[in-house]
Amino acid sequence: MLKLFYAPGTCALASHIALEEANAPYETVRLDFSKGEQRKPEYLKVNPKARVPALITDRGILTETPAILVYIAQTFPAAKLAPIDDPFALAQAQAFNSYLCSTVHVAHAHRPRGMRWADDPAAIEAMKRKVPQNMTECFELIEREMFVGPWVLGATYSICDPYLFTISGWLESDSVDLAKLPKTKQHRERMLERPAVSKVVSAHRA
Amino acid sequence: MLKLFYAPGTCALASHIALEEANAPYETVRLDFSKGEQRKPEYLKVNPKARVPALITDRGILTETPAILVYIAQTFPAAKLAPIDDPFALAQAQAFNSYLCSTVHVAHAHRPRGMRWADDPAAIEAMKRKVPQNMTECFELIEREMFVGPWVLGATYSICDPYLFTISGWLESDSVDLAKLPKTKQHRERMLERPAVSKVVSAHRA
Repeated sequence: MLKLFYAPGTCALASHIALEEANAPYETVRLDFSKGEQRKPEYLKVNPKARVPALITDRGILTETPAILVYIAQTFPAAKLAPIDDPFALAQAQAFNSYLCSTVHVAHAHRPRGMRWADDPAAIEAMKRKVPQNMTECFELIEREMFVGPWVLGATYSICDPYLFTISGWLESDSVDLAKLPKTKQHRERMLERPAVSKVVSAHRA
Repeated sequence: MLKLFYAPGTCALASHIALEEANAPYETVRLDFSKGEQRKPEYLKVNPKARVPALITDRGILTETPAILVYIAQTFPAAKLAPIDDPFALAQAQAFNSYLCSTVHVAHAHRPRGMRWADDPAAIEAMKRKVPQNMTECFELIEREMFVGPWVLGATYSICDPYLFTISGWLESDSVDLAKLPKTKQHRERMLERPAVSKVVSAHRA
């Protein structure tokens, strides 16, 4: 059985939702980041990067959200979570998720995790100040250039949707006004109507 | 015919090498970042993110290095650039490339592109100071936990190799001592022995 390591409030939410949508047999292990459990020796054996998500499979351990999401889509093809038989369409899905991981998640991380990139407290504060602008610009670009609707890729729900939903869930704490991002706001509402999403969100909040 | 937009010194090198290794029919368009060509209206129509790489295909435009690399591997399977028929092995390759794009490339970018994340000049200087440490830690982790050898994934050359080569090419300018990273150093030498790599590197330097 698959085993997902996650922590509430992290991007592991996307992989958790995808497992639920895929109707995959899985169990979860919850880490408490406030206790630094991600840096304890037993977890570093699972993921030496000290981050979540990590997915234990019968072949070994996988990390990194975009990789785990495509793995779930390929391993449970009946759920049709990605256009896995069309290299161009799959690349479009991957490009979207890659933008989320390399640009949007990173833009957000400069608020809670500025110490990754500077030691000076004033610099860390300067990074925090720019987060609302950067996150707004990222999501404006997503709405204008990438989001097809009603789901990210168009008519069909995919692995891009739980990932976007996960990161758009950080916008309020990043001081971004969701009212100015109507497609994102509607997408969040549409996501929460899905039983799999609602179930996983409740589990993370518990 | 495929058309790759690139600029020298950028991560577009990885996609360029992969096209060459795949023996793909392609042409290139070189942008001059020093003239801000990536922000000109005609290029924003190609990639509204104002970045490279962008790959024009007969189906549309693709961006984001990890997505383009898998697309090339799937479109030219004879080159065997990724384990495309094995979802777990492909996910391992993707996890490596995702780490490069979301963590390692980002760690590097805080030297030349700190203005993305803060407006205060002192904060931008503080970011630059931490880059050698962060890049060293990333590559130590790669050598210790990810790099199998002689290629990234083991005996078989893959799309992970040109991407690692591209980013390891920034280490010297990031003030990282390559002598302390023997696997990375050897990997760079091994890469440069490949005709495809040597040809593309020369084209970028020209």
